[in-house]
Amino acid sequence: SGWAPGPDGTEAFQVIISLKTLMYGRYTQDLGVYAKEEAARLRESGQRRSVADRSRTLDLLEYEKGRCAKCRICTVRCQKFLISRVGEDWIFLILLGLLMALVSWVVDFCIAICLQAQKWMYGGLDSNVFLQYLAWVTYPVVLITFSAGFTQILAPQAVGSGIPEMKTILRGVVLKEYLTFKTFVAKVIGLTCALGSGMPLGKEGPFVHIASLCAALLSKFMSLFGGIYENESRNIEMLAAACAVGVGCCFAAPIGGVLFSIEVTSTFFAVRNYWRGFFAATFSAFIFRVLAVWNRDEETITALFKTRFRLDFPFDLQELPAFAVIGIASGFGGALFVYLNRLIVQFIRKQKAINKFLMKKRLLYPALVTLLVSTLTFPPGFGQFMAGKLTQKESLVTLLDNRTWAKQGIAEEFDYIGHSQAWKHPQVNVFVTLVLFIVMKFWMSALATTIPVPCGAFMPVFVIGAAFGRLVGESMAAWFPDGIHTDGTIYPIVPGGYAVVGAAALSGAVTHTVSTAVIVFELTGQISHILPVMIAVILANAVAQSLQPSLYDSIIRIKKLPYLPELGWGHHEKYNIRVEDIMVRDVRYITLNCCYRDLHNVLLTGHLKTLALVETAESMILLGSIERAQLQSLLSQQLGRPRRLEYIRERAAAEKKLMSVVSNPGSEDESQRISQEVRFQVRARHSCNIWTHGNTSGFAESCLLTLIMCKCKFIAEWEEKQLDEQVNFNNCKIDPAPFQLVERTSLHKTHTIFSLLGLDHAYVTSIGRLIGVVSLKELRKAIEGSVTVKGVKVRPPLASFRDSGTSSSENETTELHKLWDRHKSMSLPREHTPSESDEKSQ
Amino acid sequence: SGWAPGPDGTEAFQVIISLKTLMYGRYTQDLGVYAKEEAARLRESGQRRSVADRSRTLDLLEYEKGRCAKCRICTVRCQKFLISRVGEDWIFLILLGLLMALVSWVVDFCIAICLQAQKWMYGGLDSNVFLQYLAWVTYPVVLITFSAGFTQILAPQAVGSGIPEMKTILRGVVLKEYLTFKTFVAKVIGLTCALGSGMPLGKEGPFVHIASLCAALLSKFMSLFGGIYENESRNIEMLAAACAVGVGCCFAAPIGGVLFSIEVTSTFFAVRNYWRGFFAATFSAFIFRVLAVWNRDEETITALFKTRFRLDFPFDLQELPAFAVIGIASGFGGALFVYLNRLIVQFIRKQKAINKFLMKKRLLYPALVTLLVSTLTFPPGFGQFMAGKLTQKESLVTLLDNRTWAKQGIAEEFDYIGHSQAWKHPQVNVFVTLVLFIVMKFWMSALATTIPVPCGAFMPVFVIGAAFGRLVGESMAAWFPDGIHTDGTIYPIVPGGYAVVGAAALSGAVTHTVSTAVIVFELTGQISHILPVMIAVILANAVAQSLQPSLYDSIIRIKKLPYLPELGWGHHEKYNIRVEDIMVRDVRYITLNCCYRDLHNVLLTGHLKTLALVETAESMILLGSIERAQLQSLLSQQLGRPRRLEYIRERAAAEKKLMSVVSNPGSEDESQRISQEVRFQVRARHSCNIWTHGNTSGFAESCLLTLIMCKCKFIAEWEEKQLDEQVNFNNCKIDPAPFQLVERTSLHKTHTIFSLLGLDHAYVTSIGRLIGVVSLKELRKAIEGSVTVKGVKVRPPLASFRDSGTSSSENETTELHKLWDRHKSMSLPREHTPSESDEKSQ
Repeated sequence: SGWAPGPDGTEAFQVIISLKTLMYGRYTQDLGVYAKEEAARLRESGQRRSVADRSRTLDLLEYEKGRCAKCRICTVRCQKFLISRVGEDWIFLILLGLLMALVSWVVDFCIAICLQAQKWMYGGLDSNVFLQYLAWVTYPVVLITFSAGFTQILAPQAVGSGIPEMKTILRGVVLKEYLTFKTFVAKVIGLTCALGSGMPLGKEGPFVHIASLCAALLSKFMSLFGGIYENESRNIEMLAAACAVGVGCCFAAPIGGVLFSIEVTSTFFAVRNYWRGFFAATFSAFIFRVLAVWNRDEETITALFKTRFRLDFPFDLQELPAFAVIGIASGFGGALFVYLNRLIVQFIRKQKAINKFLMKKRLLYPALVTLLVSTLTFPPGFGQFMAGKLTQKESLVTLLDNRTWAKQGIAEEFDYIGHSQAWKHPQVNVFVTLVLFIVMKFWMSALATTIPVPCGAFMPVFVIGAAFGRLVGESMAAWFPDGIHTDGTIYPIVPGGYAVVGAAALSGAVTHTVSTAVIVFELTGQISHILPVMIAVILANAVAQSLQPSLYDSIIRIKKLPYLPELGWGHHEKYNIRVEDIMVRDVRYITLNCCYRDLHNVLLTGHLKTLALVETAESMILLGSIERAQLQSLLSQQLGRPRRLEYIRERAAAEKKLMSVVSNPGSEDESQRISQEVRFQVRARHSCNIWTHGNTSGFAESCLLTLIMCKCKFIAEWEEKQLDEQVNFNNCKIDPAPFQLVERTSLHKTHTIFSLLGLDHAYVTSIGRLIGVVSLKELRKAIEGSVTVKGVKVRPPLASFRDSGTSSSENETTELHKLWDRHKSMSLPREHTPSESDEKSQ
Repeated sequence: SGWAPGPDGTEAFQVIISLKTLMYGRYTQDLGVYAKEEAARLRESGQRRSVADRSRTLDLLEYEKGRCAKCRICTVRCQKFLISRVGEDWIFLILLGLLMALVSWVVDFCIAICLQAQKWMYGGLDSNVFLQYLAWVTYPVVLITFSAGFTQILAPQAVGSGIPEMKTILRGVVLKEYLTFKTFVAKVIGLTCALGSGMPLGKEGPFVHIASLCAALLSKFMSLFGGIYENESRNIEMLAAACAVGVGCCFAAPIGGVLFSIEVTSTFFAVRNYWRGFFAATFSAFIFRVLAVWNRDEETITALFKTRFRLDFPFDLQELPAFAVIGIASGFGGALFVYLNRLIVQFIRKQKAINKFLMKKRLLYPALVTLLVSTLTFPPGFGQFMAGKLTQKESLVTLLDNRTWAKQGIAEEFDYIGHSQAWKHPQVNVFVTLVLFIVMKFWMSALATTIPVPCGAFMPVFVIGAAFGRLVGESMAAWFPDGIHTDGTIYPIVPGGYAVVGAAALSGAVTHTVSTAVIVFELTGQISHILPVMIAVILANAVAQSLQPSLYDSIIRIKKLPYLPELGWGHHEKYNIRVEDIMVRDVRYITLNCCYRDLHNVLLTGHLKTLALVETAESMILLGSIERAQLQSLLSQQLGRPRRLEYIRERAAAEKKLMSVVSNPGSEDESQRISQEVRFQVRARHSCNIWTHGNTSGFAESCLLTLIMCKCKFIAEWEEKQLDEQVNFNNCKIDPAPFQLVERTSLHKTHTIFSLLGLDHAYVTSIGRLIGVVSLKELRKAIEGSVTVKGVKVRPPLASFRDSGTSSSENETTELHKLWDRHKSMSLPREHTPSESDEKSQ
């Protein structure tokens, strides 16, 4: 029951709220014992290590006896000191930064080689257009198919961007298998192949995931040296820093990386973590760029897509309306992109025939999409009208060029050099090329990002935005050939600046972030256009946010990950809705002095993951909450197989004694009687089970049945007696401090508390009395007015106390279900309750 | 008792935790009634408004009957629509941004005029050095003295930076009088005069405060139109945005402003607010710069301190060690600055003689400090060796110059133009000038920021950092005259780049922020030095944070504002300390069925602001918490003057009846008897009071005393009876959901929860049973190992329920104290308990 298959058949999560331990700590009845044990363990491990160190020191001393022993001692001490320092945060962050910079650089290097190879093949076959086409198309199809297949086989969790999953994980939900070494390998290799194919895909999202994977694995590795790496809340903090590192080392943009990762992954952010993020991201970006210098790609450390706009007069005040237009249009464009992306996914899912076929031939969809996209970009074909031969990076470099392409509409005046030539077509205007590029790349990117390979959408969107900005800029340049400024000096319009603004605005609109502004400054190495960029990004966000969720939130909803929608701007009514308006008043609860029958009934009727424990039904004083599984195990302990067998054995012994008292004379056939008795009992239990399952096949004979009925009655009576006993909560783990609200708390406040603490549900109390409960579902409903999202299991607050794993509790549940089935069929043999079958199928 | 005078005699706060309402909502016993009233109010106001609108529309229609009535209707509708939109966040943010941009621009304009006036006076008197000196010195002394006096008289809360107070306010503590119109006026005028004097003071900190004031006042103003502005949690969100606007419009740095304000004011930050901040700060920065363009100061919107460093090769990789040195040295320098600043404040406070004298002549200290500083900067005097004639802004512009001042140590080669000439001295090397500038400005700034005027320390520190960076840069330039790069092209070293790095590093070290990096990019309009700046800022922060608190935290401690220290990096032990290690086990509690005597005893023995309410002493089930004042009012209601008088009246009536029954025949002198009786009683009560206060002056006669004793005994008996009655909690406001922890929660988690929720204390429970309490004090102790900080009253969670204001509860307390005094003196006449007198003096 712990595994719920996702609707698209590939994702299967068991999601577990683990932040709850952050809030409530781990609770066990025998705290003193636990503390003592832990203290002993720590002491022991400390002693062991120091003993090992000492013996090592001595060994070394003996070895180096003659030569400067003091120097050696010093070295050993330093070593010891270093080992003790391994636990420090900054060591971890430096290692993480270093590792990610290397990964980023190696991935970039491999992608560059892949792309070069394609160009070389394409260039070498220029004698035959058909062969050229074949090479141009086959290469990406093979790479994408390999990437999809490899990811599918090794770790399907590596598919997609990873930012939605990281957002969910940082909210305190544990997604299984999302932070394993397998996923790391699948993501890195899959991403390299996918981007090496030249498809319009990005590396940013996957790098956030890869950095988180790195942090998780590094944590595990480092925990071999020190104990601190096992701490849960520390790991969450490190994951937050890792997200920043991911963006930072991908774009060599430390500040933008930190801000972007905050915006896309957090609702509430600890300024504490911000430090870690800055530290690690800066180090990572530094190493990433230093590697480029060492590799002689660059003379010194500069921006990734360096621009050379003039500094003294970057733009005229009168150009601002044009920038605002870019912003607003980008807002609509961004919303459209998100909508289109979701539409494609939903269309393929809904068309059952297509879906079935594609599910069978999993690699067909990627191959088809790649074929389509690469056919359209084939440079001698349609690609010539949309600069098809440029890679993503080359397109961006040309789009950010500080020279004007079109002067008064006559493109011929400008001598295109380098890659910029690709935008020029003998017959077609540069404006047409740009428009075609934007339109084609738009749907291609939206389509390509639905391929099940590790890929992001940031970079393609960024390039489309830059092209759109360029288009507006070139139009402005054509409109005002001598600039707008009127005071003597001529300042021509810089279309490259428009491209920067467009890139920031469109990527900001798609991701619902404003930090894309900072990312463009860091990417271009120029901040002169700060105000146009900020204005456009804010306008784009305002428009996009009012139309569609962000791309990541859209994916979260598509993948049905647990989430809490954001409160929009200026929704006044949120301040006026109270908890009492949305809370569920009919709370399932158990009382401290309840009997097992009550437990049974409560478990049968409700579906909540946790149940409130109150003092008495009259006082309704909330004492704590108990996980459903805990109650099920309590019930199964009381009615389970061991106790049942024991009872039967006891009963048999008692009967035997009685019989031996009654029929003492006939003691010669005693042994025979006993064997028969035992045989009967075994059969009775067997057939009893069968009978209750309604399967009365030819086995049962008339006389035997009577006997069995009699036996069954005994057992039923025993069960009844057991159910009437008072529940013993001693061995049951109780969350002693579930979160409480009061009925007048506003929806706005409740939302804040839920997102701050990563809550799943909260009880509504009034002076200790339990009066209601609010869960994520109710909150979500109240905010959206939408129906609930099912299919994902949220692990309740007490989850972290359940250390035994899922398997045992699953067994218990199954056993319990049998008991219930039986119990029910005895009392109401024909009734089939849908609620129970639901429960089973879950 | 609500007012606690601060140790420096000027600050007096009543601090009130108001975030608590965010957490727990407002609780009243008669919720239904409240809700109905509110609903009725809303309906009524809505009706009233719509009626008014309609009548207005009709008026207009009648007036314009002939001419296009449709057009008019449309206008009126638009107007109506606009009014309804006034409640939207973005309207508020735009208004706030606009207002702050105007304020910032006007303040800057006035400061510039003031500084020009000084220069003009100084320049006009160049015939006589003594007159020149007099003019140079008198002008700032007058301005600073006026600023100090004006602020002192109008609103002493306007003194200083304001960032520490805003940090405290955003933590949920309400500082009285900090957000009033008076403070606004005092701060703006005081700041303008203080900065106009040319002292090394900054405008950033005060602008954060001014923006918050603006937001608070605007909220109040806007609440005349819509109801939403009264919401408390919304106001806190708007204050957070306002802080961003403050920094943003001060430096025309929207991104840096948002980040800086987050870093200095928040521990946990809602990404929601980040939006608001960006929106408002961008708008504000935009308007601020547009005003400069309209005023013909600038041709277009550019950075405030625009630099012109080369783009293609900003710095060599081998220069990085020099940048790292700047970072580390700035770290030490920053810590030293904070230490020096605190030392000066503490020195002046500790020297009682000085303190007393200065307290009497409040304006003497500012005048003396100004005199000292301006004497030393007098250009023909010592000022010639430290570029004394430059204003702060001019210094910064020259320091960020992209030309090199010293080539191979020979400063003469360079032709100093404009202000840069001030750094050149015929006899003295430019290095000596820079060193003198740094050293002198360092202590001057530390001293000047202790003057009780509205002022910040960011800008002076920024300039000192730039000078230090320039010094290192010029040294590097002298050391490597042809640059370090070896591959053909000569790239000379750019000392201006070093100045940028130094400025960011030192200001980052003093404020413990990394966003100063972003601020310098926005201030200079160039981002090419991003990696050196980031590295230096991070190193500076690492050093400074390990040595001293930030300047703002230092001021928070000096001013004894309530605070929670940050958890440092890599303090492993924090993960191992549990709540059970630090909690107070001896919790003061009251039971639901307690009598007034228990209440009395609990109030006498404890000092906690809130008391736990448990079910019974045996079960210890936590039901809620009650504020101390609530209990005091309960007790005073039970024993207070009205009930006492009533009792005496009743008793008198009863006695009279008895007497009239006994002495019925002598009814002619009845009236006389009654008057005598009443007189006796009045006297008795009077002398009873006097007696219990131990003041038995010649008034009491022997026979009267006997009677009084008898009366007093009656009253004491009555009191005893009253105290034995069970407490009626019906009219008492109970916080029904105080925050609960479990004993195994780690210190790290507890810290997170306390800072997330802005808690003051939390109860430690174990399955509903109360076992301990942790307050901010214990937490602070555990983190710092330091003693507690007193002198500031933290208002407990229920504070927001107390709507009657302080005055009434103060009266109640006083009355109660009298009762206690009396009660005690009767039972234990000689005992003087220090605890009680403490309570009184508080």
